[in-house]
Amino acid sequence: MAVDNTSRKLEDMVRSLYSMLASGDIPEITMPSRNKENIVLDPMLSVWRYGESTVTRSGKAVDGAEYMVKLLYMVDFIREMIRESKSSTLREMYYISEGWNLGKFGTQDESNLMAEDLEVLSALLREDFKLRPEENGASIMGDITIEEKTRKGEFKKINCRDDVGDGGYGIPYSVEEDKLRIKDVNAKFILAIETGGMFDRLVENGFDESNNCLLVHLKGQPARSTRRLLKRINEEHNLPVYVFTDGDPWSFRIYASIAYGAIKTAHISHYLAVPTAEYIGITASDILNYKLPTDDLSDKDIAALNAELKDPRFQSEQWRDEIETMLNIGKKAEQQALAKYGLDYVTSTYLPEKLSDLTGFT
Amino acid sequence: MAVDNTSRKLEDMVRSLYSMLASGDIPEITMPSRNKENIVLDPMLSVWRYGESTVTRSGKAVDGAEYMVKLLYMVDFIREMIRESKSSTLREMYYISEGWNLGKFGTQDESNLMAEDLEVLSALLREDFKLRPEENGASIMGDITIEEKTRKGEFKKINCRDDVGDGGYGIPYSVEEDKLRIKDVNAKFILAIETGGMFDRLVENGFDESNNCLLVHLKGQPARSTRRLLKRINEEHNLPVYVFTDGDPWSFRIYASIAYGAIKTAHISHYLAVPTAEYIGITASDILNYKLPTDDLSDKDIAALNAELKDPRFQSEQWRDEIETMLNIGKKAEQQALAKYGLDYVTSTYLPEKLSDLTGFT
Repeated sequence: MAVDNTSRKLEDMVRSLYSMLASGDIPEITMPSRNKENIVLDPMLSVWRYGESTVTRSGKAVDGAEYMVKLLYMVDFIREMIRESKSSTLREMYYISEGWNLGKFGTQDESNLMAEDLEVLSALLREDFKLRPEENGASIMGDITIEEKTRKGEFKKINCRDDVGDGGYGIPYSVEEDKLRIKDVNAKFILAIETGGMFDRLVENGFDESNNCLLVHLKGQPARSTRRLLKRINEEHNLPVYVFTDGDPWSFRIYASIAYGAIKTAHISHYLAVPTAEYIGITASDILNYKLPTDDLSDKDIAALNAELKDPRFQSEQWRDEIETMLNIGKKAEQQALAKYGLDYVTSTYLPEKLSDLTGFT
Repeated sequence: MAVDNTSRKLEDMVRSLYSMLASGDIPEITMPSRNKENIVLDPMLSVWRYGESTVTRSGKAVDGAEYMVKLLYMVDFIREMIRESKSSTLREMYYISEGWNLGKFGTQDESNLMAEDLEVLSALLREDFKLRPEENGASIMGDITIEEKTRKGEFKKINCRDDVGDGGYGIPYSVEEDKLRIKDVNAKFILAIETGGMFDRLVENGFDESNNCLLVHLKGQPARSTRRLLKRINEEHNLPVYVFTDGDPWSFRIYASIAYGAIKTAHISHYLAVPTAEYIGITASDILNYKLPTDDLSDKDIAALNAELKDPRFQSEQWRDEIETMLNIGKKAEQQALAKYGLDYVTSTYLPEKLSDLTGFT
């Protein structure tokens, strides 16, 4: 979103608080309640979003007043960064609040949460606020050409196969249009991969070239910028997204966050989620069919699988079958377990079989 | 090390086992004992290495015989990878051993440890064996031009400032001469940085350009390839290394592993350690002088600091003073705590002060 627009929207928000004060009213802020109970599946977009339930913070109560002071300090800090073309990590903002008197945050959780609240209130993105997470480090390999606006303000053109080393192109913290432009894509689909070991394997085996696809390393539960980039390539260039993960309940959640969104970011699911993303990661059926080396499910794994049976995101017949099978056999497997059959098995056998037999596993 | 040399050295090792068998002797393998008690500080090189104590594994005992079977399977697997210009993760090798009959590893710890044993026995590097860790992801930003041999076998020239995005150049898993050549360095020193947030801060503030230096993101306890690259630039281009970390006992260990080496890799300290590396991270004195925001030391922190008082790597007067002061004040601080004074404070004040006042803190 354009910088001017961000400043304007933030100012509008502050102005509305000011006019409540000016007219003698006690200022208050109302926003959707951001908890598990207030998540609904949007039937139009097939992504999760917040429902109708709201919370109101009023200047009448001490904690409500403190909340507003902190919010105003944060808005001021963001406007200053925009003016100076700076950005900061969420952690830096937490430390900077040391100088905010009454606005000082008690913990970083509090300041992180407020940055999300500010997104909800302003319908802007954290990236618009120039706030970034501590680490990202996800990467992409394949025939896609992007232009990244560097710290010098110039756009640098990079082909994510020809202009990079074997590590691929490191996805920056913001992939919005003002930071990253997608110029040219020559690929038929995106393969999103959970682990670095498997990403490196597919790079070494040249899977992006032999199958004309883009390889994206998710680095576990993917950062917002990674999910947003998947979404942008999916929408702007019409590439299907296939998610290749380990076979355990936590990996299933990685898939779900890509396809449907996550609870903490349900206000921007329509920015981040790819509802058509298909799961081609390790399943309980794969464990049986491919006789993969396994580990026993832990108590935590079992609890997570049972929770998923009640999770609206896993209600398709195929997901229920796979989750129940996994509970029955009591085993999980990693994507690298395919190496049992040699280093090439994943690219010569497993992925071609799964890709030629896409069952619409969503 | 050249590929031919690796194959030859491995074959020599196997041949010596074979000739013991052929001449009717029970084969055995002797190597330095790889534990804390057998670590000595090399007075010539100022790095840690293994001492005189050895262990012998004999084919007489079942576990000794099994050890040799596994080692031989591993050597065979490595030779196959070299022949086919492949590489694999340590985890893939563990899974591949599923097909090795008696050579199958019980746990990945066992196979990782044996890969290190093989380094000790052959005086080669894991990188020569084409074995890589699961994740790396450290990066470098600055005016250094390298050539990376890509999966296609061609050398690609990359300037780590002009040819990359703001994320910098991702350091590959091997930075040996056959994979990565250092072509040109235009910088006066290397600043090695613990956290991604601080690396991004220095990149955004243009510290590499204003101070003519290379910024290296360590990503916590640095991977071997990161330490090796620091060593190579330090030796081949005579650049001093300054280590900028959080101020806590774990960060002190990051410094020590860069400067003196780590226990697990003491057989290759001379490849990895930079004994002249100076510490310019957060100290207990900094916490007091700069009035930094702090956290209380945990019981684990206190135990680690006390262990460091007995660690031969921290016996200089300056280290002892700083560790004792930290124990006295009972506080630690992160490098990002400098943001208390604004986003530019670290580059405009803290680092210039520390760099102009280098005390040979090693």
